[in-house]
Amino acid sequence: MPYVHGYTDREIRRLMEQSLILEDLLHSGTSYPDGSNVLEVGCGVGAQTLILSRRNPGAFFHALEISEESINKARELGQREKISNVEFKHSDLFEYAFEPESYDHIFICFVLEHLCAPEDALNIFLKTLRKGGTVTVIEGDHGSGFWTPETPESRLAWEGLIRSQRDLGHDPNIGRRVYPLLSASRYVVQDVSPRWVYADQSNHELLDGVINKIIAPMVRSAENSVLGSGYMEKDAWIRGLADIESVATHPEGTFFYTWFKGVGIKKQQVI
Amino acid sequence: MPYVHGYTDREIRRLMEQSLILEDLLHSGTSYPDGSNVLEVGCGVGAQTLILSRRNPGAFFHALEISEESINKARELGQREKISNVEFKHSDLFEYAFEPESYDHIFICFVLEHLCAPEDALNIFLKTLRKGGTVTVIEGDHGSGFWTPETPESRLAWEGLIRSQRDLGHDPNIGRRVYPLLSASRYVVQDVSPRWVYADQSNHELLDGVINKIIAPMVRSAENSVLGSGYMEKDAWIRGLADIESVATHPEGTFFYTWFKGVGIKKQQVI
Repeated sequence: MPYVHGYTDREIRRLMEQSLILEDLLHSGTSYPDGSNVLEVGCGVGAQTLILSRRNPGAFFHALEISEESINKARELGQREKISNVEFKHSDLFEYAFEPESYDHIFICFVLEHLCAPEDALNIFLKTLRKGGTVTVIEGDHGSGFWTPETPESRLAWEGLIRSQRDLGHDPNIGRRVYPLLSASRYVVQDVSPRWVYADQSNHELLDGVINKIIAPMVRSAENSVLGSGYMEKDAWIRGLADIESVATHPEGTFFYTWFKGVGIKKQQVI
Repeated sequence: MPYVHGYTDREIRRLMEQSLILEDLLHSGTSYPDGSNVLEVGCGVGAQTLILSRRNPGAFFHALEISEESINKARELGQREKISNVEFKHSDLFEYAFEPESYDHIFICFVLEHLCAPEDALNIFLKTLRKGGTVTVIEGDHGSGFWTPETPESRLAWEGLIRSQRDLGHDPNIGRRVYPLLSASRYVVQDVSPRWVYADQSNHELLDGVINKIIAPMVRSAENSVLGSGYMEKDAWIRGLADIESVATHPEGTFFYTWFKGVGIKKQQVI
């Protein structure tokens, strides 16, 4: 599957570190009752799955992932962490034979932004959810990111990530669409909330974590497509990335970004 | 003073309506003890002053404003609302003979974004504050705004406002700089927090209020400079504004924007 961030070891590290830095921000408000049967779609290397499993020890998780390499990493991790309430499945969500009304809840995080047809995924989820079940959707919005000092090259590098993701037919600014997407897919929307991170030098550790463990590696992961498409010359790209990294140490460094978390309920049976 | 939003009746209405819609968002956390002597700089037509006066009936406010027309409106309003704890003064903050250490607290809202030298203003405030006093700064960040559906013309119109403000030597994205500005001006920064608004059709009243009482009129206020500078053709500008307005009624309409509120403390005497 074309995926803007690729599948390198550096990217796996980013996903794991990111998930821990953002755990409270993104997972607060999500708790699954004991005995729930929960589907996670697009679990990747298991970054969110591990957190779900730990925070909801009485629930059982079916974690689906399209990349064989990623799901193998997720399985390894699950074994290493002695996780017993997750079953990992290697499959494309658009190919998988979901049984109707078979899951109590569905969780997807950073997945719709990488699909050409997020609406189709939400429709599949609606069918495989039990009546009264919920889908929890967490997506970023790259249009929400800004920082100081914002040099032209750092902005261009950021735009390079956005354009590379758009070139794949995906929406890097999908966060703002979580409400309309859920609503149009016949979920009753319980809540959509921005989940934002703001950091400045009064909290250097957070600023450094967000910049150097999440944002800079995320932008860097698009290097091949940014340079390959000719959006930026290599020199400008290198300067842009260095400028983003320097936000963490610059006395005037600040950073803001928001994800959106939405919960939709399946209120009635769907044919 | 060159001021991107101008001084029309429509603009006065926007400022008053905006202040009420955003009152809790922006004023929460601000309370001045009885007997405090508080300076508000750049009070305009008194939109924030009225709220300060009502929420802090035991404090006394000195409200300064550079535009004679605006301060006259503010005075009228004060009389109509029978406000007794505010004294309005017509003056340029850079000309006014502030007495050193004469105010307990200072409040400025949507002011630094309209100055060529916000640092100089913060330095003046530092001198006229009593030791232990606070400055409260509330500023927007136009780089934080995004919406659905985001048409190219609606984005261009928004960028037109930003460019017009920049052309005056002012920083429409100053919100992200509140922390570094306070910090560089030798305040001890107590807190800087994003104060965001997000609205979708699940809260139509909020979405409509934000779009039609704050955002669209704010963009429209820059019409003369956007068209005068040639950033946009009139047709595109009209379409852009209409597209922004239609966010309020569009089934997929969503809007996000964040202001930043910072509080700095004067910890030691300044020579």
